[in-house]
Amino acid sequence: MEHDTVRALHWTGEALVLLDQRRLPHEIRYEECTSAADVANAIETMIVRGAPAIGIAAAYGAALAARRYADPQMCEAQLQRLAGARPTAVNLHWALQRMRAKLLDGADAEAMAAEACRIHDEDVIANHRMGRLGASYFTARGAVLTHCNTGSLATGGYGTALGVIRAAYADGRVSCVYADETRPWLQGTRLTAWELQQEGIPVRLLADAAAAALLRLADVRWVVVGADRIAANGDVANKIGTYGLALAARAHGVGFMVVAPGSTLDFASANGDAIRIEQRDPEEVLALAGQRLAPAGVDAWNPVFDVTPAELVDVLVTERGTVERPNRERMAALGA
Amino acid sequence: MEHDTVRALHWTGEALVLLDQRRLPHEIRYEECTSAADVANAIETMIVRGAPAIGIAAAYGAALAARRYADPQMCEAQLQRLAGARPTAVNLHWALQRMRAKLLDGADAEAMAAEACRIHDEDVIANHRMGRLGASYFTARGAVLTHCNTGSLATGGYGTALGVIRAAYADGRVSCVYADETRPWLQGTRLTAWELQQEGIPVRLLADAAAAALLRLADVRWVVVGADRIAANGDVANKIGTYGLALAARAHGVGFMVVAPGSTLDFASANGDAIRIEQRDPEEVLALAGQRLAPAGVDAWNPVFDVTPAELVDVLVTERGTVERPNRERMAALGA
Repeated sequence: MEHDTVRALHWTGEALVLLDQRRLPHEIRYEECTSAADVANAIETMIVRGAPAIGIAAAYGAALAARRYADPQMCEAQLQRLAGARPTAVNLHWALQRMRAKLLDGADAEAMAAEACRIHDEDVIANHRMGRLGASYFTARGAVLTHCNTGSLATGGYGTALGVIRAAYADGRVSCVYADETRPWLQGTRLTAWELQQEGIPVRLLADAAAAALLRLADVRWVVVGADRIAANGDVANKIGTYGLALAARAHGVGFMVVAPGSTLDFASANGDAIRIEQRDPEEVLALAGQRLAPAGVDAWNPVFDVTPAELVDVLVTERGTVERPNRERMAALGA
Repeated sequence: MEHDTVRALHWTGEALVLLDQRRLPHEIRYEECTSAADVANAIETMIVRGAPAIGIAAAYGAALAARRYADPQMCEAQLQRLAGARPTAVNLHWALQRMRAKLLDGADAEAMAAEACRIHDEDVIANHRMGRLGASYFTARGAVLTHCNTGSLATGGYGTALGVIRAAYADGRVSCVYADETRPWLQGTRLTAWELQQEGIPVRLLADAAAAALLRLADVRWVVVGADRIAANGDVANKIGTYGLALAARAHGVGFMVVAPGSTLDFASANGDAIRIEQRDPEEVLALAGQRLAPAGVDAWNPVFDVTPAELVDVLVTERGTVERPNRERMAALGA
């Protein structure tokens, strides 16, 4: 029982087919991208989201650019376009750097596509490895709390934090997955609840603000989240709300686990202060699904990510290994 | 400049007119209650909400019962109906107890209405006093963060936590009010943003999960919230999300202030564990304004309140005086 059937990305050999995550859970619709511009647009509009999935999509986007443009400079312009689609996720830049290196090596369209597939395959393998590593910390059966969506929908498949939860569930160590609704984009409500339901894993939603009370009242053993970028000292940039969860977990002695592939590590950023935090359109907070919630003329503060200081992280899980209570020295062991 | 024009309740002498808070901010519509059952229904359906406003509405409901039923036992049945409308708010029971005492004293319909008006007037006076007491803690100009709605819409007028913010703003000590959107019911987005906008006080909304990041990044001096019930040791039951805010405030050395009238104090509850926490319909989390967000078949955990331990409260403000770092001994000074 792998509890793993959902896929966000599919490469046909000629196009990248994306499950349109804006339409979930009500509609299962696929979007076909035949150019790098299509892929950049899909990333910007969040047809595809989740740091690892964005990186994989961008790699396929680079392959599509190589198919369309023989001229390396035209290709590079497309890579730039892809790089600008989301600023915080470091996997995007990591994947594009790998594709760029191939391009500079003189790879043809076919070799570029093969490299993108390799990036995709390696992500799934890394997720399975992280799943096993993370699940080994689940020593007793209990509930788990997660935030945003870090599953097959956010990755090449299986998931990061949700991959650990999948693996621990398969081991019989997870009684229930509590999922934060994750305002403003409601990844928890729309994506995580849907994905877990597809896989037959019991899930219960809650308002983000209810998380601290949940840790006080329920038998939650672990808070497990993903990451969009991890600094050299172990500070973690992840979906807005992660930091508050980490504070609440520490206050209750509940373990706080961050699960992210090595491509998320950013040793060039000394700590979280060096990470640029993306702000998105205030309308995401002021409205929902096209319906205006706030009075006209009122503004919102809408950062997409926050930074959780390394000292609040109990375990960082990567496919390169795990780091308990990360700091600069322990993080160095994960260096490429 | 009182910045105080909005009113949630209006007594005509024959009916209670309520501003329908379910329709704000898009529609200004009033609901007329001519019976206790009308008022109980208005409380249950959240046409009127906010612990003090619920208490005042219930008092007027009791006055309407006295007008309709000469028989004290018929009247008492109506009081019971009102008491069952919302379980957590203690003001409701406090107000009904006052009305019941009048009834047992043989008060006629006119005397009952006069008592309800007195409860209403006393609430506004208490709020002004709390506003002055609380604002005296604002020693430097800066931003403030609040949760839910605790303003004129939640009280007889002026507000509790929002009354303190009104007073501090009038003193020139508030640069901006950050308001949590307050899922699932979005009191921040729909009510607090609207009320502050009406009063010309600068307001900016944020997703609840962004609060911890805000305290890390912005110049927030105080987190100011109301309360639905305060136990004998100073533990505070308030809108879900308050506890997480208190944890984040303490982590950042930001002051955490609770503002509530004496009628919120419940010396019969030794501590927060004794407070019954109301659960509301999971649909509040799973849907929004009739629009389904979550996949069918997925459940939600939807507690309306959480309990903030007294040790996280820096200042408790009541009209009877303030208590810093409340505990059982210091709280006793507020005893009726």
